[in-house]
Amino acid sequence: MRYSVFAGGKRLRPVLTLAAADAVARADGEPADEAFDLALPAACAIELIHTYSLIHDDLPAMDNDTLRRGRPTLHVVYGDGIAILAGDGLQAEAFSLLAREPQTADAAITQRKLLVVDVIAHAAGAVGMVGGQAIDLQAAGQAPGRPLTLDGDGLKRMHARKTGAVIRASAVSGAVMAGGSEDTVTSIDRFASDIGLAFQIVDDILDVEGSAAELGKTAGKDAASTKPTYPALFGLDRSRALAADCLARARETLHGAKLDEGWLVPIAEWVVNRRS
Amino acid sequence: MRYSVFAGGKRLRPVLTLAAADAVARADGEPADEAFDLALPAACAIELIHTYSLIHDDLPAMDNDTLRRGRPTLHVVYGDGIAILAGDGLQAEAFSLLAREPQTADAAITQRKLLVVDVIAHAAGAVGMVGGQAIDLQAAGQAPGRPLTLDGDGLKRMHARKTGAVIRASAVSGAVMAGGSEDTVTSIDRFASDIGLAFQIVDDILDVEGSAAELGKTAGKDAASTKPTYPALFGLDRSRALAADCLARARETLHGAKLDEGWLVPIAEWVVNRRS
Repeated sequence: MRYSVFAGGKRLRPVLTLAAADAVARADGEPADEAFDLALPAACAIELIHTYSLIHDDLPAMDNDTLRRGRPTLHVVYGDGIAILAGDGLQAEAFSLLAREPQTADAAITQRKLLVVDVIAHAAGAVGMVGGQAIDLQAAGQAPGRPLTLDGDGLKRMHARKTGAVIRASAVSGAVMAGGSEDTVTSIDRFASDIGLAFQIVDDILDVEGSAAELGKTAGKDAASTKPTYPALFGLDRSRALAADCLARARETLHGAKLDEGWLVPIAEWVVNRRS
Repeated sequence: MRYSVFAGGKRLRPVLTLAAADAVARADGEPADEAFDLALPAACAIELIHTYSLIHDDLPAMDNDTLRRGRPTLHVVYGDGIAILAGDGLQAEAFSLLAREPQTADAAITQRKLLVVDVIAHAAGAVGMVGGQAIDLQAAGQAPGRPLTLDGDGLKRMHARKTGAVIRASAVSGAVMAGGSEDTVTSIDRFASDIGLAFQIVDDILDVEGSAAELGKTAGKDAASTKPTYPALFGLDRSRALAADCLARARETLHGAKLDEGWLVPIAEWVVNRRS
């Protein structure tokens, strides 16, 4: 568990959690440090969930990746059995942390904590990340039955579940913990939905363009498999334009909800312009 | 997920949850049906967690079992990748269910729900079930490094985590949801701890004595591997005596806490006297 959690990584999701909490606090004229304290356990839980999903995704029975965050993947070092258990343990630890922290007797915050458990569990589960990964396995021909053929819409729906759901949950958790109104949380959710899609499109582009040294993981994996990707379906130029559209929509959402002070805009720009 | 959850099984853990809720309601002179309604989501969540653990435990990278609850194991039918994801999805679904149900605005019950998330996540995670399974893998020589050699105490500690933690969480969740006092919850926990140990000792005995037809899973697996078991360490007669000791202590605990009306005693007797 430590090997994978402390391997570094971009920490995009927990940063989004904290940035969403910060944006809500700014909009409400509340102190940001209080919002951070409330949202930090959710940020950590999200990273534990994300790390568990990478460990399981890298297994030979799934993507069979041997390099992650610049190091050998967990199963290469400790074997498949321990890697499965490490992932399982990280998922449990995420929910244990959400239940425990922040420690409070405050009924309103207790209610928020329980809502965040639901938001994250829902995003991580069969209607979210795990379901998206199951579609991905089918598309790659690694599950029983004929391989699924995904068109542009199918690809978008798969990513909305596989990557998008947890990215949305990251931002929503921060907004909920900071006490955002229902409208605010909805705007944060819509923003994160566009960012999540942009993130995946850029991931696909980088897999074509990047090197393993920059990415810290095996490059060119997608083309080597039968998996559909944005560049494969739309070409590189159209894929870049789609990512830019996402960024424009994300900015607009934030502006309309007066949430565009703070870090959410720079994070969105980084997601689209990053090189790794 | 459906294939494994609806494959039957003894449902011992959710039954324990409901029986504990019932015992607490009886002791407090409250209506049992209300306690059932409060505890039912926890009972279901526990069964989802248990089912996920069986799916992952049966994988080739772990115990490599092909028969479970009288049917081919999930990975035999759907492949290892889908089996890993089905287990992951069931764990997430368990916490989603605990957060959502029972739906209530009542602050005291919201507090209980969050406590149950923590109790179950803690029991399912690295300090509980998953950690116990990791020790089990090491003892079976399926993890890197020299195989662990467990003596009687080591075996007991492994089972306390691998099986005992979730059995305790099952009963404790029911007691918490029914509004049991701290003393009551402690007694239920102590009772379940003895029942969990008895369950494992009897499991080991049945693996030696039983047939696959009775068990619904492969018999004689333990002796065929290097795993330590109660019969291997203590012999069959002493193992039976140890299970009987557990039953006696469990009865005593219930009697002392005035929780011996209802179903907990018959469940404890069944655990020790069962043939499958």
